[in-house]
Amino acid sequence: MRLVIVGGIAAGTKAASRARRVDAEAEIVVYQDEPEPSISECGLPYLLSGVVDERADLVARTPEQFAEKGVEVRVRHRVEKIDPENKWLSVRDLENEGAFEDGYDRLVIATGARAVLPPIPGADLEGVFELRFLTDADEVRAYMEARSPKRAAVVGGGYIGLEVAENLCRLGMEVSLIEGEDRVALAYGPEVAERVEERLKENGVSVYTGAKVEEFKGEGCVRGLRYGGGDLEADLVVVGVGIEPSVELAEEAGVELGETGAIRVDRHMRTNLADVWAAGDCVETVNLVSGKRAWVPLGDTANQMGRVAGTNAATGEDTLEFPGVLGTGIFEVFDLGVGKTGLSEDEARETGFETVSAAVETMDRAGYYPGAERVFLKLIADRSSGRLIGAESAGSGADKLTDVCATAIWGGLSYPDLINLDLAYAPPFGPALSPVIQAASVLSGEFDRARRGVRAIE
Amino acid sequence: MRLVIVGGIAAGTKAASRARRVDAEAEIVVYQDEPEPSISECGLPYLLSGVVDERADLVARTPEQFAEKGVEVRVRHRVEKIDPENKWLSVRDLENEGAFEDGYDRLVIATGARAVLPPIPGADLEGVFELRFLTDADEVRAYMEARSPKRAAVVGGGYIGLEVAENLCRLGMEVSLIEGEDRVALAYGPEVAERVEERLKENGVSVYTGAKVEEFKGEGCVRGLRYGGGDLEADLVVVGVGIEPSVELAEEAGVELGETGAIRVDRHMRTNLADVWAAGDCVETVNLVSGKRAWVPLGDTANQMGRVAGTNAATGEDTLEFPGVLGTGIFEVFDLGVGKTGLSEDEARETGFETVSAAVETMDRAGYYPGAERVFLKLIADRSSGRLIGAESAGSGADKLTDVCATAIWGGLSYPDLINLDLAYAPPFGPALSPVIQAASVLSGEFDRARRGVRAIE
Repeated sequence: MRLVIVGGIAAGTKAASRARRVDAEAEIVVYQDEPEPSISECGLPYLLSGVVDERADLVARTPEQFAEKGVEVRVRHRVEKIDPENKWLSVRDLENEGAFEDGYDRLVIATGARAVLPPIPGADLEGVFELRFLTDADEVRAYMEARSPKRAAVVGGGYIGLEVAENLCRLGMEVSLIEGEDRVALAYGPEVAERVEERLKENGVSVYTGAKVEEFKGEGCVRGLRYGGGDLEADLVVVGVGIEPSVELAEEAGVELGETGAIRVDRHMRTNLADVWAAGDCVETVNLVSGKRAWVPLGDTANQMGRVAGTNAATGEDTLEFPGVLGTGIFEVFDLGVGKTGLSEDEARETGFETVSAAVETMDRAGYYPGAERVFLKLIADRSSGRLIGAESAGSGADKLTDVCATAIWGGLSYPDLINLDLAYAPPFGPALSPVIQAASVLSGEFDRARRGVRAIE
Repeated sequence: MRLVIVGGIAAGTKAASRARRVDAEAEIVVYQDEPEPSISECGLPYLLSGVVDERADLVARTPEQFAEKGVEVRVRHRVEKIDPENKWLSVRDLENEGAFEDGYDRLVIATGARAVLPPIPGADLEGVFELRFLTDADEVRAYMEARSPKRAAVVGGGYIGLEVAENLCRLGMEVSLIEGEDRVALAYGPEVAERVEERLKENGVSVYTGAKVEEFKGEGCVRGLRYGGGDLEADLVVVGVGIEPSVELAEEAGVELGETGAIRVDRHMRTNLADVWAAGDCVETVNLVSGKRAWVPLGDTANQMGRVAGTNAATGEDTLEFPGVLGTGIFEVFDLGVGKTGLSEDEARETGFETVSAAVETMDRAGYYPGAERVFLKLIADRSSGRLIGAESAGSGADKLTDVCATAIWGGLSYPDLINLDLAYAPPFGPALSPVIQAASVLSGEFDRARRGVRAIE
C-alpha cells in the first residue's frame, strides 16, 4: 500500500508517523514545498528575538530522521495536481525544476494555511513581511541584520501580532501595534482585551485600535504607514491580519469544501473522495459548543487531526475519530497568559445562546504565599441548562484555568458541578478555592438573580 | 434564628460567611478553642521557615472583621456539650475559666481534626512537636529561637512531613525524614515516590524508609531517636504521621459517625440529628470514583463543605448539596509539584477495579522554549469502561495536569475523549500535545494490547 501525504508540517508529519506505527509495511511518502518538514510554526515569533536560539530548534525532525523510521519526506516538492480517478499526482521538484507523476493508493491532504496579505498599497515594499513559514522568519531576520530597523509596526492585534510585537520589543525596537477593530484579541471579551492593551502599553508598545492601515509608504524600502487616524514611521512592518486555508489543489481535484472555505471532512477525516483523507489547517471541523462548522487552524488540533487521518488512511477503515474542537486557544504577551475555551459572550449570542456570565479577579496561589499574582477568569454559561459554554482567563495560571474549563466543557459540566469540583489545593499552587470554583460561585449568584428576574416579570 | 457554629477554622468560618449572606437577619455565633479564627493551616510549614513572613498572614480574618459582617466569633471558647433535645450548649471560656450555657436554633459542627501522636516513648520530651494548629507553629518557632537546633528529624513522609522537611532545610538544618512504610508519599504510586525521594536527597535530606521510630531519646530535651535500623541524632523532632477527626463532642451528643470514624452526613451536610449540620475535617464524605465513604481532611474541601452546610443551615432547607470528592491532592517539595486525583493503582484494585495505566515523562512546554522542564504523568483507567479513574503527576505543571484530570474524572471522560481533548497550546505553556493527550495516547495503546491479550486467551 502506497500512502502519499501532501504537506509536511504538523498534521502531515503526524499522519505519516501514525501510519508508520499502524502499518509497518506501507510505503509512506510526504511531499512538501518548504525546505524543512515538521516545523513548529508557533515558535516563529520567538525565533525573531532569539528567545528561541536556532532555527534548527523549530524543526522537530529532519528528513533523515523520518527516513530512519521508514517515512520518505521529499521537501521542495510541490504537488500540483491530484487525479483521484486514476490515483495519480503531478509533482514539481522545486529544487531541480523538474516535474514527474506519482501514484498513490491512499492520500492525506495536509496543505495547511497561509498568511493573508491584505490589498494595501505598498505591501510589496521591502521591509513589509508576513510571518507564517520558517522562510518568512529567515527573511525578517536577514532584513533586521542588514538594516537594523529601529521602529517596527505590527499590523493586526491577534495572537501572531501580539507575539511578534513582544518579540520585536525584546530586540529594543520601538514598536507600534495597529488593529483595525476597536480592540485587540478580538476573539475575547472586552475585559481581557483591556488587560492585554494595558500590558502592551506598560511595556512600551504604542497601541492603535480602530486604525485601518491604508498605505505602506516608502521608496523601495518601507518608511512608514498611513492609517485612518494618521501616519506612523516604521522601517519594519510585520502584517499578521489572518490566515486562509490552502485548498486550491484539493478543490481542483474535486474535494468538497465546507461553509468556512476549508476542506470538509467527516469525523474520520475522510473527504468526499474515495481513499482521500485531509487534516490540519486546511480542513474545517465542528465547534462542539456551538454545533457549527468551524475553521480553527492551530498546531495542537492539527496534530490531533493528523493522528486520526494517518491512522485511518493506514488501516483504510474508520478506526479513529476526531469529534471536533471547543475553540480553545492561548497566547502570552509580556508574561501575561491569555487563554480561552468555548465561546465568548458575543459568539454565544450569535449562536443563539442566552448567557449568564460571571468574572472574578483573584490570586494564583494562597495570598500569603510569596509571589502570588493576579489572575482574571470569566465563565460563560448557557442560561437554560446552566452548562459551561465558555471561559476566558488572563494572568498567572491562565493556562491551567483554561484547560480546566475546556475539560469541564468537554464533560458537559454545569456551574453546580464547578462549585464542588475537587481541584488540587496547596498554598504554592492556588488559593484555597480555585478561581474556577470562586467564579462558579459568583455565577451561581447570577443564575439566582436571573431566575428572580424572570419571576418578577411573570 | 440563632445559628451556632462549633469550630472556626476553614469549614466553620465559611459556613458562617455563607449563612450571613443567605440570611441577613440570623444571629450567627462561632465558638472555637484557638485564639484566632480562619487560620490557613496549610501554610504552617511555610511559617516555620519564614517563607510566610508573619503569623498574621495566616489569619484570613480577625474576630473584629467577622463582627463587621455581623458574625460573632468567640475565640478561646470550647463547646463542651451539645444537648440536641433542648438545643442547648455548654461552653467553657478558656481565657476566663468560666462556663455558661447557650441556646441554638440550628447548629453546624466544624470541629476539625487534630494530629495523632503515636505512642512512642519519649514523645513528651521537649523539642518533639506536631504541627497542626497555629499554636503548634508558635511553639516550634519559640523552641528554634531558644535552642537553635542543628539537626531535625521529621517523622512521617506524607504531605505535612515533606513540607516540614523542606522548610527546615531552608533554615539550614540537617534534616532526616523517617517513614515507617517502604516509601514516602504513600498515597501515590512508586514512580512518584521515587521522584520525591530523589528530590529530597538532591536537596540534602536524609531519607529513611521502612524505618519505624521506636523511641525518642534525651533527658528533658530531645537528643535523638531510635528506629528499626539504628539511631539518629536530632535536637528537633516534628511528627507528622497523621491526623484524626475531632468527633467526641458530636458523638456524645448522639451524632452518628460513619465507617471512617468521622461524622456521617448526607449530601446536604445534615447529620442524623434535627437541625444539626456538620462540615470540614470532622466529617466523612464519598469518594465519587470508588463509591466508598472517605475521610479526606483538606482545606479546600472543608471550604466547599462549609459553603453547603452554612447555606442549608441558614435556609433550614436542602438548598445546596455536596456530592463528594475525587481524592484530589497536591504538595510541593523543593519545587517539585506532586499532585494526584482519583485512585492510585493500589486503591483502584482494592476497590475492585481492573485497571489499565500508562505513564509519560515529557516537557512542560515546547521543547525549544527556554526553561522547559520535565513532568511526569500517569493515567489510570477502568479496564471495562475505559473511563479515567486516577492520575498522578510530578514535576513542572503537575498542578495543571492534576486539575485537568480531576475535571475529566468529574465529567466521566474516558481515554478516547482525552486524546482529542481541546486543551490550550502555545509554546510557553506546554508541548504541542499536552502530557494528558500524550499519556492518553499511550493508554490507548495499552488498551489495544489488553484487548489483544484477552482475545488470545479466549
